[in-house]
Amino acid sequence: MSGKVDQELKLRAGKVIPGGMYGHQSVALLPPQAPQFFVRAKGAYLWDADGQRYTDFMCGYGPNLFGYCHPDIDAAYARQMAEIDVATGPTPRIVELAEAFVETVTHADWAIFCKNGTDTTSMALLTARAYRDRKKVLLASGAYHGAAPWCTPVPAGTVADDRAHFIYYQYNDVQSLENAVAEAGDDLAAIFASPFKHDVLVDQQLPNPAYARRARELCDEKDALLLVDDVRAGFRIERDCSWNHLGVQPDLSGWGKAIANGHPISCLLGNERAKQAASRIYVTGSFWFAGAAMAASLETLRLIRTTDYLERTVAMGNRLREGLSSIAATRDLHLSQTGPVQMPLIMIVNDEGNCDFAKSSTFAGGMIAGGVYFHPFHNMFIGAAMTDADIDHALEVADKVAKTFRERTPA
Amino acid sequence: MSGKVDQELKLRAGKVIPGGMYGHQSVALLPPQAPQFFVRAKGAYLWDADGQRYTDFMCGYGPNLFGYCHPDIDAAYARQMAEIDVATGPTPRIVELAEAFVETVTHADWAIFCKNGTDTTSMALLTARAYRDRKKVLLASGAYHGAAPWCTPVPAGTVADDRAHFIYYQYNDVQSLENAVAEAGDDLAAIFASPFKHDVLVDQQLPNPAYARRARELCDEKDALLLVDDVRAGFRIERDCSWNHLGVQPDLSGWGKAIANGHPISCLLGNERAKQAASRIYVTGSFWFAGAAMAASLETLRLIRTTDYLERTVAMGNRLREGLSSIAATRDLHLSQTGPVQMPLIMIVNDEGNCDFAKSSTFAGGMIAGGVYFHPFHNMFIGAAMTDADIDHALEVADKVAKTFRERTPA
Repeated sequence: MSGKVDQELKLRAGKVIPGGMYGHQSVALLPPQAPQFFVRAKGAYLWDADGQRYTDFMCGYGPNLFGYCHPDIDAAYARQMAEIDVATGPTPRIVELAEAFVETVTHADWAIFCKNGTDTTSMALLTARAYRDRKKVLLASGAYHGAAPWCTPVPAGTVADDRAHFIYYQYNDVQSLENAVAEAGDDLAAIFASPFKHDVLVDQQLPNPAYARRARELCDEKDALLLVDDVRAGFRIERDCSWNHLGVQPDLSGWGKAIANGHPISCLLGNERAKQAASRIYVTGSFWFAGAAMAASLETLRLIRTTDYLERTVAMGNRLREGLSSIAATRDLHLSQTGPVQMPLIMIVNDEGNCDFAKSSTFAGGMIAGGVYFHPFHNMFIGAAMTDADIDHALEVADKVAKTFRERTPA
Repeated sequence: MSGKVDQELKLRAGKVIPGGMYGHQSVALLPPQAPQFFVRAKGAYLWDADGQRYTDFMCGYGPNLFGYCHPDIDAAYARQMAEIDVATGPTPRIVELAEAFVETVTHADWAIFCKNGTDTTSMALLTARAYRDRKKVLLASGAYHGAAPWCTPVPAGTVADDRAHFIYYQYNDVQSLENAVAEAGDDLAAIFASPFKHDVLVDQQLPNPAYARRARELCDEKDALLLVDDVRAGFRIERDCSWNHLGVQPDLSGWGKAIANGHPISCLLGNERAKQAASRIYVTGSFWFAGAAMAASLETLRLIRTTDYLERTVAMGNRLREGLSSIAATRDLHLSQTGPVQMPLIMIVNDEGNCDFAKSSTFAGGMIAGGVYFHPFHNMFIGAAMTDADIDHALEVADKVAKTFRERTPA
């Protein structure tokens, strides 16, 4: 609940930060109960600046996979930081981490490490165009691939040229994809795909296997590269690239968010086919070679391989989905729950099934006031540090909110 | 000196990293003595994977300002990491740090924090175009502003459209700048400038005050924004934006590298004039709101304000420049030393004054073999953790290299 200290901080922020805050962590579009600032994070919990605790169903918008301030992962970071972090060259950790990714992710033969999710998709764009010196890149309408001039979802400050040679198709629609490929003709560089449709404000869609397979076939036929943008979903669907269970291996995959449990690192993975092109592009960053986040990522990959974190997040996701379904039925709430259970998008919808922004905000605001951080229109995340008790607590709060919600809302 | 362990690591890297390494920290163009990997960093020193120690005149290509593994700065990072780093919202550190930058940098009224230097210039591009909804941006030929599709210095994977609406001028050339402004006509969004000309492989140039002032005037006349890209030089020239001593205040300035002494954070600063435009663009990143690097930056800013680091790096830079000049005269070496003494570019030049790539490499390679990490064609950095003894040691090694160098090189 945004309290007095939070309000004071927001006033100060408004003076020295454009718009008071920027990007995906601005609360401008969130319910008024959502605090802007947090002062403590541990495991599955966050504390806001006024001292209220939340069970955090956003997991930092993805990075928190094993729990905030994970002792083993943070210790790996601190140990490396005390020896060498950023320097005039990389540390051996970069080799070890590339090897670990190659061993973990089926399609991957190499890795390039960077800092932002946007860095990975920008590198994929360069690599794909360098591969056969072609220009056309196919993107699903509405998909989020980052916030650089070529991909930011808000047009302010961009020019049409930033998106020259992009062709848009409808996610999961084979015909639409084929039409886009035909439009690209001999100039097809790549097809970009999210592992599932996880756009904001509209129902999530799991990938249609026929669509995923056709994307692979078309890239093979046209000698173009297939990218799966796993920045948000990576290691939350499988211990591999998220299309592995469909039997579809991309040429490139983008990773970030959870790969070091919140420490700043992202990466582009690729196969042998794409390696030469990737070696020709020039990409770099001041902190891309820093060792500490790589050490943390090595420890995170170890936990990914050796624990049942994935099965537990799926089980807890099912528990949440079933519990909310039951509450919705009892309380006559038009609740939409879509996407993988461990990355649920939960909205109140109108009779047409579209997000009712006001009602979704009221619902999420009630949850937040009750100490459960829910998002009204962005997919959420179940973290491995959560317990069944956390899910049950969220369901208790949801039931209370649903009850008052129904009382308040005209039938 | 690249030894056995380094060679083994390079072999492993070649299998899992395109080209064996990427970006500015690849040793592909460096002398064979340059090690690719480092295992320890402390103060002014680096140790390579084979155990050789170097006095590091690259400072991590800029981030190391107060010394590697600085106890106070790293402690600030660790303390914040133990409380909350990345989360579902920012910590109060973001407000405190924005306030500290506004207090420190004369032209700045606000800050947006990010991770890469390229993030700051990309945000400047978006902000400048959003400001009056114009497209043309003026860049100095050969200037480095990052490695995204719109600015990477290597064309592979880019398309001409990435640079649509860019107009190039010659750094320090008022007439060239005026011509570019005339070419932009009513569509001038911004002039981008490095604080001094610090392109690779050519002599550095300090800014001509008339050029800097004219850039400011032209932006005022045309209601366009002036960016100083201080990512590389910020806080190494002044305790303020690097054009402050010229009496020129930009609308926007980009910062990174040294602002947290190596911890991963960069930022765009701007004035009130640019604030509304900056609030309209959509920029973000998974780790941009993380508190630990902000806590480290707050501590770094404290040291910037309260210590004589700047005067000491200038004094040591002068000691190095004068010492090398003396050696060059004695040993008859055609040495070019350009740029600010604390960010020197040191090359062996031919009779036309151009970099002799082979001889520069031989010279830097000799320095590296002698335990002093020099770069043959990129500006170097004097760090505040260095001492006069480190400079004198570098000069001793340089004298030995110059001697054998002269013996080896045809007169």
